Amino acid sequence: MSELSDLSGSQHHLAAGVIRTDLAMADGRTIRYYDQGHVTRKAIDNRPKEDRPGLGELRLDPLTNEWTAIAAHRQARAFLPPKELCPLCATKPGLDSEIADSSYQVVVFDNKSPSFGTPIDDYQLPVIDGIKTKLGQSIGKCEVICFTDHHETSFNQLEEDQIRIVMEAWRDRTRELSKSKHIAHIAPFENRGEEVGVTLSHPHGQIYAYPFLPPRTEKMYRAAKKFHKETGKVLLDEIIKREIKDGERIITQNDHWIAYVPFAARYPFEIHVAPKRSVADFTELSDEQADAYPSIAKEVLQRLDGVFGIPMAYIAAWHQAPVRKGREVMRLHWQITSIRRAPGKLKYLAGSESAFGAFIMDLKPEQSAQQLRDVRLPN
Amino acid sequence: MSELSDLSGSQHHLAAGVIRTDLAMADGRTIRYYDQGHVTRKAIDNRPKEDRPGLGELRLDPLTNEWTAIAAHRQARAFLPPKELCPLCATKPGLDSEIADSSYQVVVFDNKSPSFGTPIDDYQLPVIDGIKTKLGQSIGKCEVICFTDHHETSFNQLEEDQIRIVMEAWRDRTRELSKSKHIAHIAPFENRGEEVGVTLSHPHGQIYAYPFLPPRTEKMYRAAKKFHKETGKVLLDEIIKREIKDGERIITQNDHWIAYVPFAARYPFEIHVAPKRSVADFTELSDEQADAYPSIAKEVLQRLDGVFGIPMAYIAAWHQAPVRKGREVMRLHWQITSIRRAPGKLKYLAGSESAFGAFIMDLKPEQSAQQLRDVRLPN
Repeated sequence: MSELSDLSGSQHHLAAGVIRTDLAMADGRTIRYYDQGHVTRKAIDNRPKEDRPGLGELRLDPLTNEWTAIAAHRQARAFLPPKELCPLCATKPGLDSEIADSSYQVVVFDNKSPSFGTPIDDYQLPVIDGIKTKLGQSIGKCEVICFTDHHETSFNQLEEDQIRIVMEAWRDRTRELSKSKHIAHIAPFENRGEEVGVTLSHPHGQIYAYPFLPPRTEKMYRAAKKFHKETGKVLLDEIIKREIKDGERIITQNDHWIAYVPFAARYPFEIHVAPKRSVADFTELSDEQADAYPSIAKEVLQRLDGVFGIPMAYIAAWHQAPVRKGREVMRLHWQITSIRRAPGKLKYLAGSESAFGAFIMDLKPEQSAQQLRDVRLPN
Repeated sequence: MSELSDLSGSQHHLAAGVIRTDLAMADGRTIRYYDQGHVTRKAIDNRPKEDRPGLGELRLDPLTNEWTAIAAHRQARAFLPPKELCPLCATKPGLDSEIADSSYQVVVFDNKSPSFGTPIDDYQLPVIDGIKTKLGQSIGKCEVICFTDHHETSFNQLEEDQIRIVMEAWRDRTRELSKSKHIAHIAPFENRGEEVGVTLSHPHGQIYAYPFLPPRTEKMYRAAKKFHKETGKVLLDEIIKREIKDGERIITQNDHWIAYVPFAARYPFEIHVAPKRSVADFTELSDEQADAYPSIAKEVLQRLDGVFGIPMAYIAAWHQAPVRKGREVMRLHWQITSIRRAPGKLKYLAGSESAFGAFIMDLKPEQSAQQLRDVRLPN
């Protein structure tokens, strides 16, 4: 029996007719194929077996009580390889990529150089002794999600059915990763464009499963909890009511979702997309809500590319309630931020933003909402 | 009598033989010349009088309870002008710069396009009503500090005497700006290099005087207060004791200052430089401490440039106690961060850092400290 035996053929039936098939990769990682329709997945990863990198370190910064993950093995990771060597394309003659099959719809596989690694038998959690972290290991999970096997496209050019599969994968990963006792918060995000450090141009995202609440999530949790305590209300619900009332920052909406530039946007283009009936996380989304996401997602990202008529670099991140706290006050929403303030001009995070955390905006949110609304969409 | 009369000739005698002379600029802003030795400053700014930009807005983000300053007038600011049009050089035939005199040592003048503007008569402070900011104006102070009138140099190539004048200017500005009731925190910083968005290459820094505690300062204040409450000790003092005990992250030191890579550094190269006898802010530094700063400042920044043999982009920011709180627990230190992780490779703040605030480091702090120590300094 090969090592593959315990995974091979393992299937899960999800919503929207999506079937997930799990297979083992050559070095022991797992790849999950998400498919609509009758597809059999059994391709074997024939690459030579490589050693997996060890776990990194977690260190607490006593000046701020924030964690830094130190993953020194990541320094050597692939950096903008040519298209014919893309590790996120399907395998083809001359290319043994991360995906053993010769085509795929959507896949999610364990990151080869994770910032937060799967716990091994003798892992050590960090212990804080005064200002000193007694060294602990950086455990959790980092996964890569490939949105399509087409190399030369982008999220906003995918068919709606394809985006629906991506959405189903995000729901599935949140559901499954939530079961791990090591994981405190699950964060799917996409970095797009070299301007935000993307090292692989194939359309893909990442799913970080943190062993702690990331600082910004912690801050959002505190604000939502305080608001709930003072008013009995859910913060994001009130924010959306206010956006609907003000109107001038709304970009678009459909029956289930609304997209707006937030009142105190920190980036030249910042867009929040939220379900109108609010939910704590992906696992609480109804199928109707999930089905209504692809059209607004495409529209919003097409509007972003349309502002200057160039593909915009962006970070698109899903905020949701942490796994084990704040579910009654935190709400799922998709945050898209772009640092381009004009053709040829980026917003840099310099002294005020980087060293002090205080953001300066050169554009009014009402102006950027207007620019986004004015974009003529492709037919 | 001209408008200049109330400023012209106004002089202040500071430490290290530095004399500050205040003069009015054509549009009503103030420029302060800091000089060692007998220099008379009376150059008149002959540029046509321009209208000053109005005050920006301050908006609270209810999701995080953080302020964003919206300064839409900044969009039009100068962007990498050619050397012969540099607004930070001294005035010469064909160039009417921000500095009316034909040479200078160190000057500090009010920023032409400030993110936080000087209050005008009918300014309005923001009022928070639930999740809604009733619009208020972005008041405070933004100043520009020119480190030298030589265009083609950088901070680490200045003579020590010159850096001593810069230090005296920082002390003086902190002392004076602390008197304004609108100002909560004073933050001198330098951005160096186009990679961090520098729009003027002349060696200069900025001094931001915020009307609120910037988020990172607030976080540092909370951590220091908690530590003091639990232990009765001052956090930065204990951190420095720990760095001295561990030793492996120390880069250099002299009688009064110590420079180290912090234990949980967030950037490929991050250096903290702190006075050994800790003080709350610039106003508490002794003259001996101030005198001992230039040599370690030059050395640390020369080591940074020496790591890859190229001028490193960096953000060098002074953290100090806020004006009106935390003086018993917060301590002055200089934080230098660089995003270059290798020649040709930058660290970008992508999904994890930007959207979630969780930093991933590719290099161990002990490794970067070793690299910095190994640099051979120029004679």
